[in-house]
Amino acid sequence: MSRDAADLLGVLGGMGPLATVDFMRKLVDETPAAGDAEHVPVVVYSVPQVPDRPGAILRGGPSPLPAMAAGVRVLRAAGATRMAIACNTAHYWYEALAREAGVPIAHIVDAAYEELAAQCPAARRVGVIGTTGTIVAGFYQDRLAAHGLQAVLSTESDQNEYVLPAIAAVKRNDLPRAQALAVRACNGLNASGAQAIILACTELPVALDQDAGAVTVPCVDATRALARSCVRWWLGRAAAARP
Amino acid sequence: MSRDAADLLGVLGGMGPLATVDFMRKLVDETPAAGDAEHVPVVVYSVPQVPDRPGAILRGGPSPLPAMAAGVRVLRAAGATRMAIACNTAHYWYEALAREAGVPIAHIVDAAYEELAAQCPAARRVGVIGTTGTIVAGFYQDRLAAHGLQAVLSTESDQNEYVLPAIAAVKRNDLPRAQALAVRACNGLNASGAQAIILACTELPVALDQDAGAVTVPCVDATRALARSCVRWWLGRAAAARP
Repeated sequence: MSRDAADLLGVLGGMGPLATVDFMRKLVDETPAAGDAEHVPVVVYSVPQVPDRPGAILRGGPSPLPAMAAGVRVLRAAGATRMAIACNTAHYWYEALAREAGVPIAHIVDAAYEELAAQCPAARRVGVIGTTGTIVAGFYQDRLAAHGLQAVLSTESDQNEYVLPAIAAVKRNDLPRAQALAVRACNGLNASGAQAIILACTELPVALDQDAGAVTVPCVDATRALARSCVRWWLGRAAAARP
Repeated sequence: MSRDAADLLGVLGGMGPLATVDFMRKLVDETPAAGDAEHVPVVVYSVPQVPDRPGAILRGGPSPLPAMAAGVRVLRAAGATRMAIACNTAHYWYEALAREAGVPIAHIVDAAYEELAAQCPAARRVGVIGTTGTIVAGFYQDRLAAHGLQAVLSTESDQNEYVLPAIAAVKRNDLPRAQALAVRACNGLNASGAQAIILACTELPVALDQDAGAVTVPCVDATRALARSCVRWWLGRAAAARP
């Protein structure tokens, strides 16, 4: 078996199955492949029958960790040599999942940071926009701080009036409404001093893709950044395997 | 562990990774879910580093069967209790893969037949449109015959002038061109007596979705039919598990 064939990306799916499909689509989009065989080999575990993640973070509900750890063990047994988690909120349990994995798991915040550092290296104050579960979990703030960046968060009223309704509008496919709300949320972060914004949920990039020029600061789609990070790993492994 | 949690759909990915994403998207679309946890739990093995399938069928190239069988074994070890193959051409090796699986594998032709029987029960002559590999493989013709239906195929000139260029146009995202070519291919089958048409590749449904009214006979998207068949299985299992 060639080294290429032995490399395999394991993907732990998001809480919602569409987030997993979104990640897989972006993984294909971001791969510079001249043919099918150059795409990233991947095994995906997408089992949405897991205790609610925001419920566990926000309201002390049952932990989804045992079910997610079981998924990671399936990916490991399937031969995954690298993993990714196609869900922002699930990164609250990253360290425990990384211990279970036995192979490196790409971290979505590190992937977003790498995109930010490439696109706007001078930015020090970075807006983070996502579900309340992701924001309250705090790992974006902590991990960005480790890279020397300060997270700027939406005010509570912006979170409730713009961010959450924008996410809900994407889920019901009302994209013009979602876009208008998402732009207001981004402008709020900008007014609070954000020099760039990380879109830390699956829905907001869909809203803002409608008109990329409507937000005046650079925006990074965390899901796409994670996909790009996985593609860089794959291309690096393929290059290393060449004689 | 509840019976729901123990059921798991294993998906053997298509040769091209987009075909797999397309199937997963349709699986979500076709699930009548009020929340994330009602979606089909799924494990996907999508490893495109497999010998070319049309090459094996049309030109006697190396068989992709050992690599696909390895994928089926991964899905089995992951706990799949039912499987599906998100690729028309791969069904050429269905019987061998089914022996490897140890659990039932939904067959894409049976799924398409069920859709046809529901939509146009009187149809006896059914057009089949797909890649040359799928058509030459012959399993659509054989399996439809087992259901009492006669497959109607594109003429060689229609295959080369309309079908293959339509597929290529979808791959390069030229959808107006793809749609015009796909409509001509369907009209050709209609002129040959087809009372309904099965779209037996991933690309043609994308082309025809642009204007559903342009083809006058009913068309069945085989990928969507396979997804619907998997959803019926999931809903049936979930119902059976209720006390």
